[in-house]
Amino acid sequence: MEEESLSRSWRGAGSMPWYVGASQLLGVASVVMTGVWMGHYRGGYAWDGSAQEFNVHPLCMVLGMIFLYGDAIMVYRVFRTESKRSVKILHAVLHALTLLISVIGIVAVFQFHSGSSIPHMYSLHAWCGMLTFVLFIAQWLLGFLFFLFPGATAWLRSCYLPLHAFFGLVLFGLAVATCLLGMVEKLLFSILDTYSRFTAEGVLANCLGMVLLGYGVLVGYVLTRDDFRRPPHPEEEALSVHFKTLTEGGATSP
Amino acid sequence: MEEESLSRSWRGAGSMPWYVGASQLLGVASVVMTGVWMGHYRGGYAWDGSAQEFNVHPLCMVLGMIFLYGDAIMVYRVFRTESKRSVKILHAVLHALTLLISVIGIVAVFQFHSGSSIPHMYSLHAWCGMLTFVLFIAQWLLGFLFFLFPGATAWLRSCYLPLHAFFGLVLFGLAVATCLLGMVEKLLFSILDTYSRFTAEGVLANCLGMVLLGYGVLVGYVLTRDDFRRPPHPEEEALSVHFKTLTEGGATSP
Repeated sequence: MEEESLSRSWRGAGSMPWYVGASQLLGVASVVMTGVWMGHYRGGYAWDGSAQEFNVHPLCMVLGMIFLYGDAIMVYRVFRTESKRSVKILHAVLHALTLLISVIGIVAVFQFHSGSSIPHMYSLHAWCGMLTFVLFIAQWLLGFLFFLFPGATAWLRSCYLPLHAFFGLVLFGLAVATCLLGMVEKLLFSILDTYSRFTAEGVLANCLGMVLLGYGVLVGYVLTRDDFRRPPHPEEEALSVHFKTLTEGGATSP
Repeated sequence: MEEESLSRSWRGAGSMPWYVGASQLLGVASVVMTGVWMGHYRGGYAWDGSAQEFNVHPLCMVLGMIFLYGDAIMVYRVFRTESKRSVKILHAVLHALTLLISVIGIVAVFQFHSGSSIPHMYSLHAWCGMLTFVLFIAQWLLGFLFFLFPGATAWLRSCYLPLHAFFGLVLFGLAVATCLLGMVEKLLFSILDTYSRFTAEGVLANCLGMVLLGYGVLVGYVLTRDDFRRPPHPEEEALSVHFKTLTEGGATSP
């Protein structure tokens, strides 16, 4: 029965590389398009409190909170045959990198606001962004304490896992939405008068929005499709790793 | 074994009314707050191509594509003990109502644009909105053909079901994101100079954004939590309804 389910799971997973490959194309495209938008149309990059320092913000957030975050949550599907511990560590390291790059991006926008005497945290984009970022840090810390730190019992882990998986995907969706909100703000602050005339910058930004959505949907699909899940590994079962409890719970196992 | 799983499912589902109740509070709050924003701060409603006709747009979209859509996709959880056919019909009717109200909202904004000589479909909000709406109609038609129209075989239904459930949730998330984008546009078009001073209208809109996110997350949680799923009904099994295939597939069963 278990072997049958394992074999069915393997057959279904044959198409996964296509979805993952497509997601990587869109992920790289989103970073490149953000780089071109800020680099070519918005005057390039600096670190001096000017509008060029602001330009570091979108680039870092798309690279960190979208591309790296998306890849970090897909590792349990992409490396579904590797040992659980290695994949856990890769998941945590990619998230730590996401955190580092996002902090640089957030510092950039706060310094730009201070340098230009613009109040902080007044817009819906800022509220959504800060909410996402604070919950992302909480999620990272809880994930570390429950799944990498040796103190948590298997029971505690199995209770927290479905919440960790659910909020991981919710925060990723929130990060994509927050990016789109920031793009609308930037467009209306920069090209309010010409946006409605389908100028190249506006169309590039709209296409970037579509690419971000495409990346988000593909990551969500790879994560939630049932036969892309990690199959049970006999050696992990033998080591009484907490796998059985988790798969029985039907959670999107990290 | 099946009885045990059924009983476990029932125990877990005991907390569902709290989540559904909270979602309804947030859903109603989002409609009321949109109504107050447009009614009190933006000059009320009309149907004459003016800015007051535009105000019909946010109200209809929040009522239709957010509140009713969210409720329509929760019916399989909320009425998990009712007959499948009745719940299917309720699901389809709520979606038809969503479609009707959204069409009114979309006509309102197109008439306002025409009346004010503003080009159509240039903004990221418009692109996301149109994408969501076209896919929503496709999803509704496919859902009707596969699950209500008698022609589709059980095999076809079971193949399409996971995609229908996945895209149903994705489009709901996209609808929430599109609303937030529209709110940012409206804020920057209306109160660009005062938004950063934390004026009442800006704070109300930001709070509305948080309420919409909260509603979206609660609906997503109710839909994806494993023990909130519809338990197997013996009389449906006897009637060889396509339930077994569906639950074995592990899909979020509509």
